[in-house]
Amino acid sequence: MKNLLQDIAPVTLMGPGPSCVHPSVLAALSKPTLGHLDPEFIRIMDAIKTQLKTLLHTENDLTIPISGTGSAGMECCFVNLIEKDDPVLILVNGVFGMRMQDVATRLGAQVETLEFEWGTPVIVDVVQKKLKEKSYKLVAVVHAETSTGVQNPVPGIGNLLKDSDTLFLVDAVTSFGGMEIRMDDWGIDMLYSGTQKCLSCPPGLSPVSFSPAAVAAIQARKTKVPNWYLDLSLIMNYWEGATRAYHHTAPINMLYGLFQALFLILEEGETQVFERHMENHRRLVQALDQMGIHMVVDASCRLPMLNAVYIPDGVDDAAVRSRLLKTHKIEIGAGLGNFAGKIWRIGLMGHTARAENVDKLAASLKTVC
Amino acid sequence: MKNLLQDIAPVTLMGPGPSCVHPSVLAALSKPTLGHLDPEFIRIMDAIKTQLKTLLHTENDLTIPISGTGSAGMECCFVNLIEKDDPVLILVNGVFGMRMQDVATRLGAQVETLEFEWGTPVIVDVVQKKLKEKSYKLVAVVHAETSTGVQNPVPGIGNLLKDSDTLFLVDAVTSFGGMEIRMDDWGIDMLYSGTQKCLSCPPGLSPVSFSPAAVAAIQARKTKVPNWYLDLSLIMNYWEGATRAYHHTAPINMLYGLFQALFLILEEGETQVFERHMENHRRLVQALDQMGIHMVVDASCRLPMLNAVYIPDGVDDAAVRSRLLKTHKIEIGAGLGNFAGKIWRIGLMGHTARAENVDKLAASLKTVC
Repeated sequence: MKNLLQDIAPVTLMGPGPSCVHPSVLAALSKPTLGHLDPEFIRIMDAIKTQLKTLLHTENDLTIPISGTGSAGMECCFVNLIEKDDPVLILVNGVFGMRMQDVATRLGAQVETLEFEWGTPVIVDVVQKKLKEKSYKLVAVVHAETSTGVQNPVPGIGNLLKDSDTLFLVDAVTSFGGMEIRMDDWGIDMLYSGTQKCLSCPPGLSPVSFSPAAVAAIQARKTKVPNWYLDLSLIMNYWEGATRAYHHTAPINMLYGLFQALFLILEEGETQVFERHMENHRRLVQALDQMGIHMVVDASCRLPMLNAVYIPDGVDDAAVRSRLLKTHKIEIGAGLGNFAGKIWRIGLMGHTARAENVDKLAASLKTVC
Repeated sequence: MKNLLQDIAPVTLMGPGPSCVHPSVLAALSKPTLGHLDPEFIRIMDAIKTQLKTLLHTENDLTIPISGTGSAGMECCFVNLIEKDDPVLILVNGVFGMRMQDVATRLGAQVETLEFEWGTPVIVDVVQKKLKEKSYKLVAVVHAETSTGVQNPVPGIGNLLKDSDTLFLVDAVTSFGGMEIRMDDWGIDMLYSGTQKCLSCPPGLSPVSFSPAAVAAIQARKTKVPNWYLDLSLIMNYWEGATRAYHHTAPINMLYGLFQALFLILEEGETQVFERHMENHRRLVQALDQMGIHMVVDASCRLPMLNAVYIPDGVDDAAVRSRLLKTHKIEIGAGLGNFAGKIWRIGLMGHTARAENVDKLAASLKTVC
């Protein structure tokens, strides 16, 4: 019987996530499994909450990792907040805005969208106009659109909602850990992220955070959350308080990995981490420019960690990505949705965002394009 | 800044899960992360499907691990099958039957239950009588009730449903990997399990399997599954077929762990694994008997992997468990629900089911009781 795990060789992960994982995070995953109610493990849970609060710049007590990937975090935010026919506004300029629309619609919300051209950001003035016409229970936007490489103006949108009863939901899957997020200052009420992007931890967990206003809205629900697994009123009893009530068995070893990933970011320093992302982004843009490969997104709203580039004319998309992976052990991402076959997505997320990776990719691209 | 992970010391996990994890499974978790669409990774996904099908004795194509813990598997089975007002019968004789009832009710099903005394099994004749009165879309039962240590008569219930249109859903969270499951022979249509019990992999994944009849029922839905994250019609496109469509990013390193855990069971041999569970169960019962500690469940329907025992008179439940953990580095489980404070739950699951662990627990219990 052959053990396929023996064949796994390291790949430089320069796609839209997962990103390269630091050896100490991989080592953390293989620490001995503790019980999910062991006081030693609960200390680690509490520490993770503190780490997340620090990095999200929030005082929200309800700041925890959900036991699923980033999309479970999206599901969790919507399913806890939405009841049938709740009016919801979703700002859409890529695949992940569309996914929000799908999730909220399935839950019975009255979903409206404001759509913006792919590769361009949400325009705050247009949102403002829409909000003057109608009031919504929640407004949702993706901070870093992983499908296009665009940064949306989260603080500006937050400003529009600050003195209203409307809750503000932000997808921070790709931004968290790679660029500034100030949850409380920016008026964000609900936020979800993933571990496999700029936190550079393998996929499997979704950090979420809920403001007191969001928690009050959950507590004011008329109906039970139609999702037992993601019901925050139950999950809170496991993650908070002096005595912890069993809900589901937490993914213990994955949480070790997340602790270590957050530890590394705090040790390096947030500012330094963000600067490292920007520096390597600039290094990449320059290298690609010299090769005649052009960025999709205007410099004013480009993401440092997700670089969308046009596939050069006459180049075979799939063949180049396959050669990069097989010959050079580098993974870059394909286009999604409208951008499939037209762009590549080059990730510089977390531990991937290093000069040696940028240089290796540039050199390799030259040989395969 | 202190790194809490340095403090983690191994614990012999003899509670209701997580169980002790084999060193090679822990090592598998820390293999380099691959991309979720990397052909090498897809080979591992395909191998996991084959391993699961082999161990569940099923030909079901839709046999995959869900990206969440066992309770996510429960949620997945119900949310994909149930539409509003579907009649559902749940057989309840412990916490996990009650959880099924809660999950199904939240999803709008017309839920009826048949309740049996905690610590005793579901009675097939009573179920048969109920099924003659009314027809249900699905009947659900827990194979191994983790809250009481009872084995329910799954083959007998399956027999009642074989020539009907009623789907048969089985919770195999605690049984899978520790006792026989023959999904196809027993007429099971939907099954979910968890990784942290007899598979001895850390928590975080939930193997599920769906029969062709269950898949047809999903395809015949009138409404979309109200849970994007767990919608099997979308998940299937990632786990099946020649080209794999991105849905959510799979928990890659956890899947390495699951592959290795299943590999170990297949290498040892199913029969040998089940015998090892029975042998160590008998060894434990004998040792406890000598100490005057009595089993909750009659020998005819006891689980080998989850031993519910009455807390001896005058013994302080929490204090003893705490001393076992602190002084002897052994974890056993408390009672849940009706049994809280009355019983202990001693797990002999997967890699925990070894004579040295039984002997260590017996010796330690003598010093702390």
